[in-house]
Amino acid sequence: MRLIIAGFGAVGQSLVSLLKNRMNWLREKYGLPIKVVAVIDRGGAAIEKEGLNPEKLIKTKKIKGTVASYPEKGVKEVLCQEVIEETEAEVVVEVTSANDLSTGEPGFSNITTALKTGKNVVTTNKVPLVLALPALMDLAEHNSVLLRFSGTVGGGTPILNFGKECLQGEKIISIKGVLNGTTNFILTEMEKGESFHNALLKAKKLGYCEENPSLDIDGLDTAFKLVILANWVMDKEVTLKNVKIKGIRGIEKEELTENLKKGYTIKLIGSIEEKIEVKPSKISLNNPLNVKGVLNAVMFKSEISGNKTIIGPGSGGLATANSVIRDLISIKRELMMRMVR
Amino acid sequence: MRLIIAGFGAVGQSLVSLLKNRMNWLREKYGLPIKVVAVIDRGGAAIEKEGLNPEKLIKTKKIKGTVASYPEKGVKEVLCQEVIEETEAEVVVEVTSANDLSTGEPGFSNITTALKTGKNVVTTNKVPLVLALPALMDLAEHNSVLLRFSGTVGGGTPILNFGKECLQGEKIISIKGVLNGTTNFILTEMEKGESFHNALLKAKKLGYCEENPSLDIDGLDTAFKLVILANWVMDKEVTLKNVKIKGIRGIEKEELTENLKKGYTIKLIGSIEEKIEVKPSKISLNNPLNVKGVLNAVMFKSEISGNKTIIGPGSGGLATANSVIRDLISIKRELMMRMVR
Repeated sequence: MRLIIAGFGAVGQSLVSLLKNRMNWLREKYGLPIKVVAVIDRGGAAIEKEGLNPEKLIKTKKIKGTVASYPEKGVKEVLCQEVIEETEAEVVVEVTSANDLSTGEPGFSNITTALKTGKNVVTTNKVPLVLALPALMDLAEHNSVLLRFSGTVGGGTPILNFGKECLQGEKIISIKGVLNGTTNFILTEMEKGESFHNALLKAKKLGYCEENPSLDIDGLDTAFKLVILANWVMDKEVTLKNVKIKGIRGIEKEELTENLKKGYTIKLIGSIEEKIEVKPSKISLNNPLNVKGVLNAVMFKSEISGNKTIIGPGSGGLATANSVIRDLISIKRELMMRMVR
Repeated sequence: MRLIIAGFGAVGQSLVSLLKNRMNWLREKYGLPIKVVAVIDRGGAAIEKEGLNPEKLIKTKKIKGTVASYPEKGVKEVLCQEVIEETEAEVVVEVTSANDLSTGEPGFSNITTALKTGKNVVTTNKVPLVLALPALMDLAEHNSVLLRFSGTVGGGTPILNFGKECLQGEKIISIKGVLNGTTNFILTEMEKGESFHNALLKAKKLGYCEENPSLDIDGLDTAFKLVILANWVMDKEVTLKNVKIKGIRGIEKEELTENLKKGYTIKLIGSIEEKIEVKPSKISLNNPLNVKGVLNAVMFKSEISGNKTIIGPGSGGLATANSVIRDLISIKRELMMRMVR
């Protein structure tokens, strides 16, 4: 399986590190021989159809700042989409960062270029998906290729896989969850008596959120994940504009500490029922969604077997990179299935 | 897909009811047309290669007490294993109850007969599995058929599927869990101040345990589930004799109420690490394994992405029957995969 990696930040580099150690294991256990034939970053690309060397890729990036300086195979001044279009490969791993919130670029064009040129796509980028997931899934189907993104919800915790694969054979009625680690960390601290302001500072200090924390605390990141869950697990064709969003700004610590005495807590809950909605919600302390710190928790309600909750860490570069490997295994399986359909 | 159903108690009947309502849905969504060609109970069997009528099966059982009275197609005085051997079918659904703890019969012979005659097996019976799972898996492989049992751990909650399918691509280091709803209900009541004796009576009254509750409270049922998890998810070739077992007898309510004040609780935890062990264990109230009542919770620790916990109801006839359908879908997929390998 030949990969083009678009974007070489934390996730891309973690992926290449993981692959370096796991090449043999993946080939032996999953029949999945992997070759990285191109890596693209802001400075250019490294391209080699026989496969690039993982160690050299990481070393070049570290020392020179761009894979364009990869010995002999580095190319400067090249367009990402040209490389995707012209390099022969089975899968494009789209892991660029800082995608524009209104256009989803550069991820959006990378993904569409890959799909249109008959390449399967694995991405960990939420933004292009939430703007146009139904259209992207159609585009993939039209081109008989696959689009996978299990790292976009729950990072290392396979929430999308659980909903899609483990709950086969019955209908899922609703999904509710704590889907943003940063806001959950802040609410957990406030429950202990910290003010919103101080809890936010602490989250920043610990690296749990960006300098501009709006995506997290205003509920947008949770909404992103709901859109992806709704499309993938519940076959709802929705985008970000279908979600009603309210974040955690304005919640006072007293609200949390008072509720706590009565056996309740407040969580930023994203829910998919009749409507799709993000809002701070009061839940019982015994509710499995009452998780602490940066954990994520998602409850699936299904027709016959009731509520099932999955809890785990929501992010981390290495865990997200690992989700790419999970998706590559899934793509291989699905491609094999298609051969007999 | 032609099914032979061996055993027609709560799970068998729930399965036939489910199938009655879902025949079309399963065919359309999963390409899985299902036909029940034989049902066997203690009184005999009903056999019809064109497919038995679900409604008639349930009605006959209800009114006459045995499927042997099924109009025209009922047979008295027939051996279960003969029916399994001689009826053409793709899958034997083994759901007999009250299997002997030392021999695993009648489930054990039903399963081996099915595997030996080239039939895939789905079972919800723990006992035959925990006595000989490594041998049964070998037997299935030798005969190029599949053995599935996702309802044996967690009932409606797909714990085995999660561990096997959703955590692909990384190594699982340990599994810990609250795997028995009855003991967890008792401990939850004791935490509220009930004595062990009263909590047990309440569990019996609510139908959460048998008249003889030893399997639950002495830890055996938890041990059963560990054996199955260890074989299926962690590729350990173990049976019941490899598990060290201590149940919840002898725990005093004071132990629970005192710990509670300090932020701890006691759960009957089954764990698979270096050793496989069942014992009452002190855990923090914030631990995701701290679930209440009859819920089950299992925590998987994996190499890269940390701890992931799945929480859900542990049993129920309909939920367990639904797990059989999940396994049938899984068998269909796996058989298709084999065609291209």
